[in-house]
Amino acid sequence: MIVIMAKDSTPQDLAEVQRRIENHGLAVDISQGVERTVVGVLGSIPPDLKDEMEVLLGVAEVIRVTKPYKLASREFHPDSSVVMVGDVAIGGSEPVVMAGPCSVEDEEQMVTTARAVKAAGARILRGGAFKPRTSPYSFRGMGIEGLKLLHLAKQETGLPIITEVMAPGDVDTVAQYADILQIGTRNMQNYMLLDEVGRIDKPVMVKRGFAAPYEEWLLAAEYVMSWGNRQVMLCERGIRAFEHYTRFTLDVAAIPVVKRLSHLPILADPSHSTGKWHLVTPVALAAIAAGAHGLLVEVHPNPDLAKCDGPQSLTFQNFSSLMDQVRAVVAALHQEPVGVPSPAHRRGP
Amino acid sequence: MIVIMAKDSTPQDLAEVQRRIENHGLAVDISQGVERTVVGVLGSIPPDLKDEMEVLLGVAEVIRVTKPYKLASREFHPDSSVVMVGDVAIGGSEPVVMAGPCSVEDEEQMVTTARAVKAAGARILRGGAFKPRTSPYSFRGMGIEGLKLLHLAKQETGLPIITEVMAPGDVDTVAQYADILQIGTRNMQNYMLLDEVGRIDKPVMVKRGFAAPYEEWLLAAEYVMSWGNRQVMLCERGIRAFEHYTRFTLDVAAIPVVKRLSHLPILADPSHSTGKWHLVTPVALAAIAAGAHGLLVEVHPNPDLAKCDGPQSLTFQNFSSLMDQVRAVVAALHQEPVGVPSPAHRRGP
Amino acid sequence: MIVIMAKDSTPQDLAEVQRRIENHGLAVDISQGVERTVVGVLGSIPPDLKDEMEVLLGVAEVIRVTKPYKLASREFHPDSSVVMVGDVAIGGSEPVVMAGPCSVEDEEQMVTTARAVKAAGARILRGGAFKPRTSPYSFRGMGIEGLKLLHLAKQETGLPIITEVMAPGDVDTVAQYADILQIGTRNMQNYMLLDEVGRIDKPVMVKRGFAAPYEEWLLAAEYVMSWGNRQVMLCERGIRAFEHYTRFTLDVAAIPVVKRLSHLPILADPSHSTGKWHLVTPVALAAIAAGAHGLLVEVHPNPDLAKCDGPQSLTFQNFSSLMDQVRAVVAALHQEPVGVPSPAHRRGP
Amino acid sequence: MIVIMAKDSTPQDLAEVQRRIENHGLAVDISQGVERTVVGVLGSIPPDLKDEMEVLLGVAEVIRVTKPYKLASREFHPDSSVVMVGDVAIGGSEPVVMAGPCSVEDEEQMVTTARAVKAAGARILRGGAFKPRTSPYSFRGMGIEGLKLLHLAKQETGLPIITEVMAPGDVDTVAQYADILQIGTRNMQNYMLLDEVGRIDKPVMVKRGFAAPYEEWLLAAEYVMSWGNRQVMLCERGIRAFEHYTRFTLDVAAIPVVKRLSHLPILADPSHSTGKWHLVTPVALAAIAAGAHGLLVEVHPNPDLAKCDGPQSLTFQNFSSLMDQVRAVVAALHQEPVGVPSPAHRRGP
Repeated sequence: MIVIMAKDSTPQDLAEVQRRIENHGLAVDISQGVERTVVGVLGSIPPDLKDEMEVLLGVAEVIRVTKPYKLASREFHPDSSVVMVGDVAIGGSEPVVMAGPCSVEDEEQMVTTARAVKAAGARILRGGAFKPRTSPYSFRGMGIEGLKLLHLAKQETGLPIITEVMAPGDVDTVAQYADILQIGTRNMQNYMLLDEVGRIDKPVMVKRGFAAPYEEWLLAAEYVMSWGNRQVMLCERGIRAFEHYTRFTLDVAAIPVVKRLSHLPILADPSHSTGKWHLVTPVALAAIAAGAHGLLVEVHPNPDLAKCDGPQSLTFQNFSSLMDQVRAVVAALHQEPVGVPSPAHRRGP
Repeated sequence: MIVIMAKDSTPQDLAEVQRRIENHGLAVDISQGVERTVVGVLGSIPPDLKDEMEVLLGVAEVIRVTKPYKLASREFHPDSSVVMVGDVAIGGSEPVVMAGPCSVEDEEQMVTTARAVKAAGARILRGGAFKPRTSPYSFRGMGIEGLKLLHLAKQETGLPIITEVMAPGDVDTVAQYADILQIGTRNMQNYMLLDEVGRIDKPVMVKRGFAAPYEEWLLAAEYVMSWGNRQVMLCERGIRAFEHYTRFTLDVAAIPVVKRLSHLPILADPSHSTGKWHLVTPVALAAIAAGAHGLLVEVHPNPDLAKCDGPQSLTFQNFSSLMDQVRAVVAALHQEPVGVPSPAHRRGP
Repeated sequence: MIVIMAKDSTPQDLAEVQRRIENHGLAVDISQGVERTVVGVLGSIPPDLKDEMEVLLGVAEVIRVTKPYKLASREFHPDSSVVMVGDVAIGGSEPVVMAGPCSVEDEEQMVTTARAVKAAGARILRGGAFKPRTSPYSFRGMGIEGLKLLHLAKQETGLPIITEVMAPGDVDTVAQYADILQIGTRNMQNYMLLDEVGRIDKPVMVKRGFAAPYEEWLLAAEYVMSWGNRQVMLCERGIRAFEHYTRFTLDVAAIPVVKRLSHLPILADPSHSTGKWHLVTPVALAAIAAGAHGLLVEVHPNPDLAKCDGPQSLTFQNFSSLMDQVRAVVAALHQEPVGVPSPAHRRGP
Repeated sequence: MIVIMAKDSTPQDLAEVQRRIENHGLAVDISQGVERTVVGVLGSIPPDLKDEMEVLLGVAEVIRVTKPYKLASREFHPDSSVVMVGDVAIGGSEPVVMAGPCSVEDEEQMVTTARAVKAAGARILRGGAFKPRTSPYSFRGMGIEGLKLLHLAKQETGLPIITEVMAPGDVDTVAQYADILQIGTRNMQNYMLLDEVGRIDKPVMVKRGFAAPYEEWLLAAEYVMSWGNRQVMLCERGIRAFEHYTRFTLDVAAIPVVKRLSHLPILADPSHSTGKWHLVTPVALAAIAAGAHGLLVEVHPNPDLAKCDGPQSLTFQNFSSLMDQVRAVVAALHQEPVGVPSPAHRRGP
């Protein structure tokens, strides 16, 4: 950490800064520039020291040199992590597609969808039993009955299940049925929920909050990991920007950025980010070409009748065509994976 | 609701749209324009009808005419609501200031702060016992011990208490101590939590999600109200924009907008939106001048030592000066309240 | 256009709305719903009628049914446009890569870069002679001398040139040297400049303003086209969002969206959007996979010494590797171009 | 400037950094921390040094300690600047209101409006002769005829005139008629235009680009000032955020921030930021309470018939009422000006 003193700071101010730092058992390196005095802080920095320094008299700016997350960082864990879900490896060289309806509606819908997405090449089945809805008057999911139908579809097809959990009190129940617990975008900073999924032994997907900078997103993963659960994967699902033609704006650069900052697998959700079925395939291919470890895609036997997210759901046929194109792009990039971090700050080759 | 057909839609498409609408027991009015056919939907519109219509063949656009929230809307409840907290009226002509530290730290801090803010004119005491923190390694609050210290400060000063609740399972406990339960910005779409505070009989403050449009914010209030709890107030606390000099960007126009769209009281938080103590007073005065029903201000006996949010906390002296200025502005606007909705869409005097 | 009357509107309000519409020689279709009265406007709508209607007494909302741009729209021109630059076709099935340094610095830099990017497969040479710089104290380009060096590099390699024009008074001069005139992101709504490039007979690239919704961007293209110049192409170059790790946020969905709304070619600039060389390749591949008609890439013989944009410039070697990967992705998508608009609003095939 | 070396940087990397810095005639201070090596750069930093350093091998981060603008900064010019327009002082203790129609339409409109706003207390007359319009098909202003009508209204009332200039080639002409030249939000980074208004001897108002951080805005002012014209004032007019109920989002904190960072007068435009007449008064009062040196307000004799911006224009009566309230708030804050910078970084008094 570096503390930059204000132009008009006094020697007393500097002494107080030094005293405070040393109180924490840290060492100080003072550099008297022509324009400013700069104080380097040496040692293991407590998380709130920046806040403490910033309010001291005579302090102009405080700059963190190390990142605020550790377990989630690539510095801490240089090798890329692979999360195993049954025999499906997420984070390796083969992207994993998770597909299924927005919400579980009935047995036939789930089973036919599971069969169709499996046939097309999906490795994981998605489906919402607990649904976060903007309006209290919208369909909010089937709850436990929905989990049971997901389980049934898993038995029929062998596909592992990913589903969202919305409340700390539901974590144990959802974990009984799900193979991956999903933290939705609106709960990315629901810290009680992050604590709770950190205590279980199941893979967790942390979707990016739609207004979360990379650092806050990785800190959300850090919450989960700090409780001992290291089976964490991330999912870029679009941020809220000024454009309203699409529901959200997929930040495709997030994929190589996360791969550089973190060792965790990073997937992308082209369905929620665009909100329109005809944009799902091009955006999905973009994510794969940028190096995503997988996709989360909404598929429905009859999108016109879907209880939620119909406008962005693919038909079986369109999903199958998407998978063909994904495979083609993956093959093209084959042995030359893109976006793998070069040695830090080196220009290559 | 209005359904606009695409230029290239067929008579079969139109017939299917009509059939679907009539299936819901609604009537249809078809207007054949030169450029487009427009279908008006007459009757009480179910919440998900828009989604259903949008995916039908031949539909170009679907436009909601009525707002998706009802209980929170001024159309439904034309008179402004006043929420009573003991003998403090929130939503009337006198703005109510809620002040106190970011987090409860110890008895002396709470009691001296409570006395100081009361002396300066605050009517409600704020203080965090459960703290949402971006990093898992930061101080997360004292929990129930913090609630007890808040209660002690209330006994000493008579000031009612506002404090944040973060998990559905904590609502009953927090409600035992708090006079107003606060839903923080990161939990504005934590629907399980909204459900839970909707079931109790205590006032609730719903802070705006930092990426929430007005409509989603009012729908969060609607969640609470739909369970029967009508004692809801709103708080503008800044949105996330591209500027990083301030922590967030206070949207001051939100105050008159909410007063027009809703009957609920609207307050403002100049501390979290700016993140810098020297911006708190001008932004607080701006909110009052724009017609806010109150303020939420962070005050600490010694901001340099605060366990959180020190940089944006006011000293007792600066808070007292803020209150003097607030009173002056309120007096200036006295009998001519600003921002009260004119008769809808009328320009008149 | 549709005019929705307010709940409390009077018959007089409705009559005035009708009178105003008919004054413009337009017809009216009135639909009396249970909740609202809706007025359809039939005929060719003048551009400012929406503004006029919105302020009338008793009007709740006015909705445009047709788009505000015409010449740039796919409705007006269903076939995709191809812009020819010499023998290079932009907008066809083969993506076109434009590459070169941020700014022209000297003859050797330009000629060696031109040769290197040509050898790697670039078809157009880029280079800035007039540079928009955030600070008045930064290097602002070589001006006309820079144009001459670009011309020299063109003579050496045969590569056509794209370069930015910043002022209406410079259009003729720049057009003497350039094969494509570029309108930069900061000038997307510099209407005097758009007028001027609309009057010449040279291809124009309109980069998206970094806070421009799709509609305003297409209206900027419409400005150029309305003066008679139909050789217009668009370039997504990143929007300004809350994330600061990257310079801007590339909106990859813009590519299929523009292909749906417009017939104009759409390219992408992975260099300016990311601001970091190690993100350029994955983001470039994403754009290609999403269906972009080309790329604009910054390349420099020695990025460490570049006079501007060094951090985001590729070395010759990294650019050559990018081109290999682009070719692989293009081949993968080969005969099945992604993102080509399906028949409007059809889920087919 | 501070250069932070990467963890894995080599002694050679450090030597190269040092060599480069010394090449510019600057001195170096190297601090070897436990975690990182930090290089302080001492001396007068060239504007592009940061870019140069960032791309060197082994460099993790480069931090500017001093601001990139100088003439516009309060550090350079500690006393607040007052810009005189005739006998009107902008930047002093008395806020100055500039009012008038969006666009000049005819003599009667201008003269009656000028008289009405003068009677209500406005000190400057605004009116657009050259209008930046999103669509090429909208009314773009009367041009020179409009300037003549503004001049006529000035002769009738004595009110100085502010009007927008959009092209470098028009600066001299506009300067013949206008007392203040306005740079619109879409031209804030039209550097050729900024250069040109920097060369004349007339006050200039630089409106904030709707996606411009404070630093870029102050650099736009720096452009003008670097040519010798020090009569510069700033105007906050709303930024583009995700909310679409209002046209833009007024960033009220910009007012005290600019007063801290700069010595230039700062005004606010409640009309363009909100886009709705019924929000103009509360937002205007907010800006005044936050310490704005003035307002820019759209007023029209008959907003229903305005050729542009009717929905956000005030009637004479509503403007007069706004002025009454502005005066009341100003009086309330009278001798205790808010937002005046405290001694830097001091919490006092």
